[in-house]
Amino acid sequence: MNNFTFYSPTLFSFGRGEADNVGALVRRFGGSRVLLVCGGGSVRKNGAYDGVTASLAKAGLPFTELSGIQPNPRSGKVYEGIDLVRRDKLDFILAVGGGSVIDTAKAVGMGAPYQGDFWDFFTGKAPIERTLPVGTVLTISAAGSEGSDSCVITQEKGSLKWGCPKTDVIRPKFSVLDPSFTCSLPPYQTASGAVDMIAHICERYFTNTPDVALTDRLAEALIRTILDAAPKALQNPGDYAARADLMWAGMLAHNDSCGVGREQDWASHQIEHELSALYDCAHGAGLAVVMPAWMRYVSGHDPMRFAQFAARVFGLETDYAHPEITAARGIACLRDTFRAWGMPVTLEELGAKPEDIPALIAHRREKPGAFPFGKFVSIGPEEMEAILRLACEQ
Amino acid sequence: MNNFTFYSPTLFSFGRGEADNVGALVRRFGGSRVLLVCGGGSVRKNGAYDGVTASLAKAGLPFTELSGIQPNPRSGKVYEGIDLVRRDKLDFILAVGGGSVIDTAKAVGMGAPYQGDFWDFFTGKAPIERTLPVGTVLTISAAGSEGSDSCVITQEKGSLKWGCPKTDVIRPKFSVLDPSFTCSLPPYQTASGAVDMIAHICERYFTNTPDVALTDRLAEALIRTILDAAPKALQNPGDYAARADLMWAGMLAHNDSCGVGREQDWASHQIEHELSALYDCAHGAGLAVVMPAWMRYVSGHDPMRFAQFAARVFGLETDYAHPEITAARGIACLRDTFRAWGMPVTLEELGAKPEDIPALIAHRREKPGAFPFGKFVSIGPEEMEAILRLACEQ
Repeated sequence: MNNFTFYSPTLFSFGRGEADNVGALVRRFGGSRVLLVCGGGSVRKNGAYDGVTASLAKAGLPFTELSGIQPNPRSGKVYEGIDLVRRDKLDFILAVGGGSVIDTAKAVGMGAPYQGDFWDFFTGKAPIERTLPVGTVLTISAAGSEGSDSCVITQEKGSLKWGCPKTDVIRPKFSVLDPSFTCSLPPYQTASGAVDMIAHICERYFTNTPDVALTDRLAEALIRTILDAAPKALQNPGDYAARADLMWAGMLAHNDSCGVGREQDWASHQIEHELSALYDCAHGAGLAVVMPAWMRYVSGHDPMRFAQFAARVFGLETDYAHPEITAARGIACLRDTFRAWGMPVTLEELGAKPEDIPALIAHRREKPGAFPFGKFVSIGPEEMEAILRLACEQ
Repeated sequence: MNNFTFYSPTLFSFGRGEADNVGALVRRFGGSRVLLVCGGGSVRKNGAYDGVTASLAKAGLPFTELSGIQPNPRSGKVYEGIDLVRRDKLDFILAVGGGSVIDTAKAVGMGAPYQGDFWDFFTGKAPIERTLPVGTVLTISAAGSEGSDSCVITQEKGSLKWGCPKTDVIRPKFSVLDPSFTCSLPPYQTASGAVDMIAHICERYFTNTPDVALTDRLAEALIRTILDAAPKALQNPGDYAARADLMWAGMLAHNDSCGVGREQDWASHQIEHELSALYDCAHGAGLAVVMPAWMRYVSGHDPMRFAQFAARVFGLETDYAHPEITAARGIACLRDTFRAWGMPVTLEELGAKPEDIPALIAHRREKPGAFPFGKFVSIGPEEMEAILRLACEQ
């Protein structure tokens, strides 16, 4: 286990009806004038918008609204939010929605008190030293941004989908997690969220760091829970218990509980960012295609780790003479699970084209320090191409 | 799953050499004059005391020392610490040691800014509204107080070993966890700590709350890790990886990661507090005696939950026709594990006497709201006696 710092100071208020407390929470964390960030119409249908605005009104908190945030959130809305904060002298950013809404809120929070372009934080031109306080009311389980130290935005000039450097400064002050808001999510979005959570865990699980028994077991516990809960939520969208497991698992999958003290990989996310930048696909759907292909490509690097994954997550018996066989069976189980959930597992199923592979790699090159990426196995342009070729047929 | 609030704002700095940062951490969390709380000689032998005082000196932080804290910490030292804080106008409490030292520091932290007797917080006469900031440098893995919202002190008048009401106000600002400080711990203390961790998890695991799949799996992951790591640390005290697993597991066992959204029991702790108040035994050793007896007494209340424990923690095959048989085998495995670690598992092995049972129950009666306690199964005086009788022979 490596040395680490773990600091997750977000207050989580979890369960049915907890959004009623959002006004009090904003007050508790020093807010008096709120930028309310939200997406399209779903928060008005699932009750979140009404609950939150009623709670703000009850607490006597005026707010300005920044709505219409789209999946794979764009820089344009961030600039718009920064302008609103300055115009109306707002001091608290409240995100009501999923990962895209929360990431937009985080970017507005860091950009508003900064004199330059907020994108400087993403290019590394400026360090993130402070932010306006951010709170969230989560309505989609997946991204984990409600408890995380990360933020991903697509810069419209050049379709660059980049993350800012991870920093505890941008962790939300509080997050309200009411699973009942997610009961109206369509199956595709539910499945996509579950894949994203599993990916967040796997990016941490596949590591070269020795002596990580504890975080391995926590990671396996989370994945098994997601594998149990996701099909229940797909079959019966109103299954509160399954929705609750998914919602809390999504937070734990990305607040670094499973990642402390170990080298993390993140290659699949890097490759997927190119897919969603080009095709605007759901992040989880892109990961359902990339991650099994990445696993097949890298499993030879440490077959025993993949055999452990197969045995402990899917309950497969280990072939001790040939652990690589167990490893391959575990990867196939994961792919089949994604497929059974209605997720694409090939580029074609995602709506992507094999002939675009060179363009995906060329686009990646525009990023500073584009290659190599990934820590478990180092990925250069050739490896990225090989993984995308494997993703053509799975 | 029940609604819950989870707020664990403690910063954890984990790994070899991290105590070098303690001065900077005290500064970061607003300290300028420190009360350094520690125990007997062990922190001077394992390097913690020298590392911490050097770091404080480097940060230009003066300190006053409150040393000689004993296991099952007494109120006398709390009063002494409060006097020192007031005399020297100190503004930060730094605990260097194990759970007893940390709990003393927490009690001083809540008592110093309060006009009345700090014991008022324990009797319920006054609510805990504020505290001086507390930081910790952990040198014994077990109590979990380094990340918890709880504090247990023995009031010398009447040997009352009581906990204050749980409150996020008293969670430490930071905790430095360097596993190498624990490499010099004697086997009895190591085993006692491991039992305490398992007890912290089991008090949460055995619950009547339905739909707790996720926290069940997290709890099982932690217990399995402790079962793997403890014998390694007993066999080879210098095994850093095992010490690291135990240290981080001890924190997670008690910061409520496994307890959120579910009714918790805590009956075994209540019974054990009477044992350690009377015999001054190690808390973990007392729990090794009480917990298997409590399990035998209550398992009929929900044999399937105990069968799940047996299957998932000890890998036993479930007897589906007779889950109570699997349940009993799992409890026996836990008792045998404690015994193999050199722990007492009967009252006699602990140095306690069956003829003292009435006195233990009579002493319990002195506590406000003494009976019933326990949530999984409600424990009155008769049930407490029955459990202690079972603890005579295991």
